[in-house]
Amino acid sequence: MTQTIGPDDVAALCLGSVFLATGGGGDPYVNQLLTEKALRKHGSIQLVMPDALPDDALVVAMGEAGAPMVRMEQLPVGDEPLKALRAYEEATKRTVTHVIPFEIGGGNSVLPLLAAAALGLPVVDGDGMGRALPEAQMMTFPLAGIAPTPALAIDYRDDTVLFNTKDTAAYERQLRALLQVMGGMVLTVEFPMTAADIRAAAVPGTLSLARKLGQLLQSIRGEAEAGLPHIITFFETTLYRGCKQLFAGKVVDFERRTVGGFDVGTAQIDSLNGETARIDIRNEYLAITAGDTPLATVPDLITLIDEESSQPINAERLSFGQRVRVLGIGAPAHFQTDAALEVVGPKALGLPFTYTPIA
Amino acid sequence: MTQTIGPDDVAALCLGSVFLATGGGGDPYVNQLLTEKALRKHGSIQLVMPDALPDDALVVAMGEAGAPMVRMEQLPVGDEPLKALRAYEEATKRTVTHVIPFEIGGGNSVLPLLAAAALGLPVVDGDGMGRALPEAQMMTFPLAGIAPTPALAIDYRDDTVLFNTKDTAAYERQLRALLQVMGGMVLTVEFPMTAADIRAAAVPGTLSLARKLGQLLQSIRGEAEAGLPHIITFFETTLYRGCKQLFAGKVVDFERRTVGGFDVGTAQIDSLNGETARIDIRNEYLAITAGDTPLATVPDLITLIDEESSQPINAERLSFGQRVRVLGIGAPAHFQTDAALEVVGPKALGLPFTYTPIA
Repeated sequence: MTQTIGPDDVAALCLGSVFLATGGGGDPYVNQLLTEKALRKHGSIQLVMPDALPDDALVVAMGEAGAPMVRMEQLPVGDEPLKALRAYEEATKRTVTHVIPFEIGGGNSVLPLLAAAALGLPVVDGDGMGRALPEAQMMTFPLAGIAPTPALAIDYRDDTVLFNTKDTAAYERQLRALLQVMGGMVLTVEFPMTAADIRAAAVPGTLSLARKLGQLLQSIRGEAEAGLPHIITFFETTLYRGCKQLFAGKVVDFERRTVGGFDVGTAQIDSLNGETARIDIRNEYLAITAGDTPLATVPDLITLIDEESSQPINAERLSFGQRVRVLGIGAPAHFQTDAALEVVGPKALGLPFTYTPIA
Repeated sequence: MTQTIGPDDVAALCLGSVFLATGGGGDPYVNQLLTEKALRKHGSIQLVMPDALPDDALVVAMGEAGAPMVRMEQLPVGDEPLKALRAYEEATKRTVTHVIPFEIGGGNSVLPLLAAAALGLPVVDGDGMGRALPEAQMMTFPLAGIAPTPALAIDYRDDTVLFNTKDTAAYERQLRALLQVMGGMVLTVEFPMTAADIRAAAVPGTLSLARKLGQLLQSIRGEAEAGLPHIITFFETTLYRGCKQLFAGKVVDFERRTVGGFDVGTAQIDSLNGETARIDIRNEYLAITAGDTPLATVPDLITLIDEESSQPINAERLSFGQRVRVLGIGAPAHFQTDAALEVVGPKALGLPFTYTPIA
């Protein structure tokens, strides 16, 4: 059965993506409106599971890299993903057949859809993180041995840079250095992959999962107390293998700076009975600790939902005084190996914790 | 008459280039040895004046960008310029017919010769600065309205980045940000130009001039007192329109750091009769002041020669206790317009001086 994404799916897809973005991935609101408009104009997009990809497919991953705060001021027009994909094909003399989000999260989940809609391309149902994470080497693609380049970055004034390196950590350093002088955020087309690559490396089914999760979140909007059991039940049968509440309270302190091409900060949350938790942020919510004890860390997902609306809160929307519930969701199996944890575990992100799976 | 550069010309060319480099451009010693070896293997290189270029020429500028101190530790093998040019042709699908140094200075004067020798290409007798300067937008090419890209940068491990922007200041920012995460120095192939572009924009004849200057410097080696009048006479009939001694003394203080992709620092020179001069450095010697009075500033050339040997001293070879003469040489006419001085004058380089030509 062929799945499609139409204009009426986009709001749910974005909402579910914000939940899976664990605070990062960029606020999807503008991308949501642009994608709805594009799908109304060009028609629905075909969603292809990795197993159903034709063997001669050339898939590229797309998304925005940078500090999500920047996107709150530097609004997109809507043709950027199409321009990026065309510039990539022009620069590499390759013809792309499918696109895939490099992460499922916030605006980055739907960004490839904007290019796909305009070009009539199908989108792979999956992504390269099963969540959002701050750096390129943390994607499941390089963890499976896939090279990131040729990769192209395009900035707000259509300047492009084409990278050629085999080492994703080097690519990340180059990209991060560049985007800081290219307006703080760039759109990337990267990780050219075959069907076999995608089957081996992508986290499958996350676009349709995000849509389904978003539909659930829409149905329980305004009912956090009653809605939470539905969220927990939803995750039991997914590749995330579970979800639980880690903490609840009020945001009493929050500081964030845009530094080194990331939004970096901490939030303090106090519970009604006087307990305190601290959340470490680098674009995403990376760890929650009570005292010195980590309640959860990357690569497990840490998501904040609003106490009243039950809706997920992106880090750039977090503010003093919000009452929140902090949820922990299990990391995809791609991130549970020792080799992967060297790259996506708390120590790789500068946090002095040892990863203990919450699931 | 066709001019050529053979293996026996390289030492003089490098020596003259260090003089014109005003402290920057990188120490040429290793490049000199590599170029001598390449010219012995491949034969002499044809030197073509801009006026003699065929109309259908495609010229690219080459050189190394970064902090010259890095090159003192990160030694080249010799095939880097060839690799860079091949990567450029591959990435842009263009066939290069001639190369030109982006600056006449230190190792950068002969670097394009390494690629030219291996490929049998002629070299344009000229460059894009008539000296060395720290940033790309300070070249005569962009001052004449020529776009810097497609441009390619390659690092010590053959990672490449292909830039596409019309704005040379943006290109410089991107390049500088990148090279700091690519080992501190990259080799660039940039400013693709037609014969008409070169005729309008290049500083002509500087390679043969550097060779002639180097031969003069060789002939007066060890005779600074007697040699200086010969240097002064030499410059009278050149596009630099003159040379004079600005100061003489001993280096009594010198500090330098590699910061932001540049070697930045100051040197203090005390004369025998108790006067003090200060030299501001950003890769190149940018200004010399006595008290608050500038004796010379960019774009005029400031060159230090050793008191005993009369040979020019690159900034990365400058050291405490050296006895030196500071010479000022007029800037090429390309830099004397108001528009050019906005880009290469002292204020553009962060110095609180107004440019007063020494000539």
